[in-house]
Order: sequence, then structure tokens, then C-alpha cells
Amino acid sequence: MKLLTPFIRRSLQTATAAGLLALAWPLGAADGDQALLDKAKSLFQPLPASSALADSTPQRVALGKALFFETRVSNDGRLGCATCHNPAFYGADALALSVGVNGKVLPRNASTVFNTSLLISQHFGGNRATVEEQAVKALLSPLAYGNTSYEQVEKKLQVLGYQSWFEKAFAGDAKPLSADNWGKAIGAYERTLLTPSPFDRFLKGDTQALSTQAKLGLNKFIDTGCAGCHSGVSVGGQMYQKFGITQDYWLATGSTEKEAFKGYDKGRFHDTKNEADAFIFKVPQLRNVAVTPPYFHDGSVASLPQAVRVMAQLQLGKQLSADDVAHIVSFLESLSGEVPADFAKAPVLPVAPH
Amino acid sequence: MKLLTPFIRRSLQTATAAGLLALAWPLGAADGDQALLDKAKSLFQPLPASSALADSTPQRVALGKALFFETRVSNDGRLGCATCHNPAFYGADALALSVGVNGKVLPRNASTVFNTSLLISQHFGGNRATVEEQAVKALLSPLAYGNTSYEQVEKKLQVLGYQSWFEKAFAGDAKPLSADNWGKAIGAYERTLLTPSPFDRFLKGDTQALSTQAKLGLNKFIDTGCAGCHSGVSVGGQMYQKFGITQDYWLATGSTEKEAFKGYDKGRFHDTKNEADAFIFKVPQLRNVAVTPPYFHDGSVASLPQAVRVMAQLQLGKQLSADDVAHIVSFLESLSGEVPADFAKAPVLPVAPH
Repeated sequence: MKLLTPFIRRSLQTATAAGLLALAWPLGAADGDQALLDKAKSLFQPLPASSALADSTPQRVALGKALFFETRVSNDGRLGCATCHNPAFYGADALALSVGVNGKVLPRNASTVFNTSLLISQHFGGNRATVEEQAVKALLSPLAYGNTSYEQVEKKLQVLGYQSWFEKAFAGDAKPLSADNWGKAIGAYERTLLTPSPFDRFLKGDTQALSTQAKLGLNKFIDTGCAGCHSGVSVGGQMYQKFGITQDYWLATGSTEKEAFKGYDKGRFHDTKNEADAFIFKVPQLRNVAVTPPYFHDGSVASLPQAVRVMAQLQLGKQLSADDVAHIVSFLESLSGEVPADFAKAPVLPVAPH
Repeated sequence: MKLLTPFIRRSLQTATAAGLLALAWPLGAADGDQALLDKAKSLFQPLPASSALADSTPQRVALGKALFFETRVSNDGRLGCATCHNPAFYGADALALSVGVNGKVLPRNASTVFNTSLLISQHFGGNRATVEEQAVKALLSPLAYGNTSYEQVEKKLQVLGYQSWFEKAFAGDAKPLSADNWGKAIGAYERTLLTPSPFDRFLKGDTQALSTQAKLGLNKFIDTGCAGCHSGVSVGGQMYQKFGITQDYWLATGSTEKEAFKGYDKGRFHDTKNEADAFIFKVPQLRNVAVTPPYFHDGSVASLPQAVRVMAQLQLGKQLSADDVAHIVSFLESLSGEVPADFAKAPVLPVAPH
């Protein structure tokens, strides 16, 4: 090992990150913490300090936070971002399928908003490129906010008293209060919602940040092949993958046919109509997975150990032992971060002027 | 005035508080701040430091706060106390009529949870004696949490991991985790949700705490007769009264017949079936009224100035001038308190053990 030049070592690590795990694993070698840390660092990165865009400002973030909690813009006056992305549930909603405007059941489970700005795209189908685009398009979705036009949204925001908020946040714009800026503000806010966890401390070199069991789990997570998809800064969320490689996913998850999909959810196919996209979903990030049940795109599995077993079987054709599952769960628990203090504190929203 | 003994003076003030306003008003005499303060003190009291029951403990309050935000106990997994009593909307929900479990529209507007523990009873019809009773009975209401039995609720709480929370909060109880203790914990929490306002500082002697306009409004509020019902520590909420004395209320409010009531809402009659209770409602508190639109038991009026005009006309047969309305609104704004810091901060709820 020591004979490898840094260059070759780095190259092998890069190969690892690219998925050539079988080649790279021997680099981990010993059971020692440092070897595990090196192995982990080739696959994962700690959270950045921020994912803010260059034009983010405190005013923009404050506006975005208010809008995130604002329900009066939706068709029934009850739905806001925070409805499905609730501080009390680690930025998710603890439901199998979320519920949108006017009580309409959404076709998929709501992922946590935490760290989502770092993902390759938004939604399980990846049909939203950025958090900003997601926020804007939700306004007109008949299942989400249920508005009929952006003009309607802008009028509502004016009546509620948001004009001066937008003017402060988008001072240079010809039209500060706009649906586009709704998206930019909410995006600016969501980009602050990162949740550093014990695993980040580990990745930064503190090998005592993980328990012995969590380290066993991390090693098993990598050796089993989970990190082939669940890698990168968000431990997933960086690629698309077929769900159900060894068999149809519903045989293992207990998923039922859904009216919204006229059968089983075929993932990206429903957006692209391309058969090659059938059952292709965005790989979910695993940050905060232990605190955001239930699991999978349809919330069909409530238990994390069961979700781990299902994934090993469906995606990798492996039957994990009870110990392996327990260790991996312990590792996944190390991905739970603190709820960002600012997110936990509800904003006080403007009251429409008398 | 100075010839009155303290005893007689106090007797007259007591008479004032009891509603004999015509007799007592002259005591206010001059326009000076002190006279207004004396007049106000005969009708209103500042908030107490707490309305906690004797057995309240920090553990009980912490549990109550978690349960207040807990949605997984409801039939559809979406409804908690905080759904209708949202920190972002000063403990109310900014809807005309609230929405309960499974999207069912509730028959009445949700009042703010702030200071509600100080009121004579809960709900517009006063059919819940205390905040504790309200919290318990909501669990089985088909419109609220929609559970079918308390055993079902207790089982849900156990599965979610609340056993140890209840054991800490109700250490001496033979059965700590119980629906009854759900009510006690939530009540203990709600009793902490008091919102001192500029008007409290005024009542405590700081006559500069109110603007000149607010003082004019306070004086007009009293002189018009509003304080005949809206008095006491919560500026209302201490008695029942007919809504619509000079004419049927819907002629002024624009209220429409409601299916839930097979016509117009007749207030306490729907609970007591006693014709004497027809159109009798609990007088709402006015603390935070300026920040918790829309108004009245059915949220039929969105504008505070309009609500003030309607009340003067319907209850007192008076047409207020535009200036009077503006002044009274200014006084009512002085009843807005800060959102309690603890309420604004969402709790982190337990995740069901794996």
C-alpha cells in the first residue's frame, strides 16, 4: 500500500467514487478507523457550509422563510411548503403519501427539505431541476397550491402585504413581487437548510464521531454495494436508478397499484413517456433517513430495518443478516442532523393591511 | 372626586366591572392619561405571569408541546393542535372556517390559542370547560382527530415512542400514558401561551405604552359600550352574549346558512337545545384580534374596521364615525402580543423505534 504514489492512490479513489468498488475496496485494507475513513472519503463528502447561490441575501432568505410557511397563497388557504416539510418531522410530514390542496392525495411520499438543494434534481421523478423551479411550479400544480395563474398568485401576495418584503429582497428588479422571485426567495431559504451530522464529523477526520456499531455499519454499507448509488455529499440523490433490479419492487415493498399511475408507479416514465425510464427514480439521499419514515417513493415501508433489507434484496440481490441490518441502521442513524434552529422557529407572517 | 373614600371608589369600580357602566363612567372624568388609566383599570386587568395549574411541571409542559404539534395521532395523520393554532398565524389559522381530519370543514372559525386558558370556557359555544377538556375531547371528535376510542389513541402514542415522555411527566400515576394525561399535558403547555402586549404595560401604569390614537380608541371603546362585554383580563371571553341584538347577525356580517347547522349558526343552542340559548355565543377575547383575521364565529368578516362597525351596529345600535373606527382599531392593535418564543420553535417529535 505504502508503495502507491499519492497520484495512483487518488486515481484509485476516484475510480471508487465512480462505482468501481470491487477494484478499490482492498485499499481500505485493515479494520482500523483510518482505513475506514479513507474508504469513506473516497465515496462521500461532508456537507458544505452553504449551498447558497451568489445572489442570496439575508432579506431574500427571510422572505423565503416567510413564504415557506405561507398557506394563504394556496387555493384552499391551507397548504404551504411547511405543510409537507414540517420542522416537527425533520422537514418531511411522516405520511406515506402527502396531501396537497383541497385534500388531494399526492402520488408520492414527500422527501425531507433538508439538504435537498444539494441533490441532482427535485422530486422522486427528478422533474424539477432546482429547488427554485420546484417552488415556482408548485404554485400552479393542481395537486399542490392549485392556483390557475401566476398573476393570481402575485395578486394574493400583494393583498397579504408582501410588496415591501419583495422590494427589500429584490431591490434591483423592475418587478420585485413576482412568481419567479417567489421561487428565488424560497430557494434561497431552502439552501440554508443543511443538517451536519455525526457522519460529517467523521468524514472530517473525527473517527470517534461514529459508534463502533455505526462504523461496522458504514463498512457493511460500502461492502454490500449500497454506496454504489448512495454516495456523494448527500449519501444518495446524485443519480437515477431503476428501483427493483432483482424483481418488481412491489413484491418486496408491498406497494399497491395507485390510481394516479393507472397501476404501479413507473417513476420517470410518467414524465418522459420513454420506456427506458420505466421504474427509474432518483436515488433518494439518506441524510436524516432514520428520522423521516416511512420509506420509498410511496411510503410503503414504515420500518428502517425493513427498508434496508428490501433494498439489499431488490437492488443487490443480497440477504443481509440481522447483525448486518442492525449495523447499517446504526450507520444510517449517524446521518441524522440537528433541525436547523432557524427552520424550527416559525416566522410571523404579515397580516393583510386593514 | 377626591372626597370619595377609597372604599366607595373601589365599590364604584367594582360596579363598573360588573357592567353598571353608565354609573361609573363619570369617574374617568378628565381626558388625561391618568383618568383613562383609572377607567381602564376598572374594566381590564393585565395578563398574569402564568395560568399554570398547581401540578404543572417542565416535563409536563414539554410533553404538551410535543403533543400539540403531533399529527400522527389523528385519523389521517395530518391534524394536530398546531394545524388550526399555527405559530405563523398568531395561534390561529387565517381561515374563515377551519378544516379538520380528512378534509372535513369545521363549523366554526378557530380562535387563537394564545391566552385562551384564561377564558370562561373553550370554543365559541363554550361546550368545553377548560383547555384540558378541549384537548381530550378533540381526540374522539369525528371532525377533529377522528379517533374511535381512547384506547386507540393510547396505542398510537405508545407505538410512536411517547411512553417514556409520559412517564417523566406523570411520574406518580398508575397509568402515565393515558388520554386524560394527553389533555393535562397539552393544557399545561397551552397555559404557558400568554402574550403580554402594549396594553398590559399601559394597565400597569405606563401611560406612554399606547399611542395617542390608541388612547382615543380605548376611551371610545369604553364609551361606546364595547367593554360591557369585552372586559376582564382577556378583553372578552368572560361571558356569553347574544350575537345580533339589534338585528339578525347575518344581515350585517354577510354570513350564509351553513349545512352543519341546517341554517344559521344558533350558537349555544346547538349544544343545549334550549331556545333561550339561540344565538348566544361566548364573547371572544380581543387579545391579538388585529393579527387574527377573519372575524366572528364563522369568519364572515375579513376586515377589522368592518368587524368593529358591525359590532357597534349589531350589539349597541351605534353607527361609528370613520375616526372612531380608526381609533378603536388602533386600540385593538395595542392588544397584539409577541408570539411566545417557545411556541414559535417547533419541537422535534419522537420517531417510532425501529
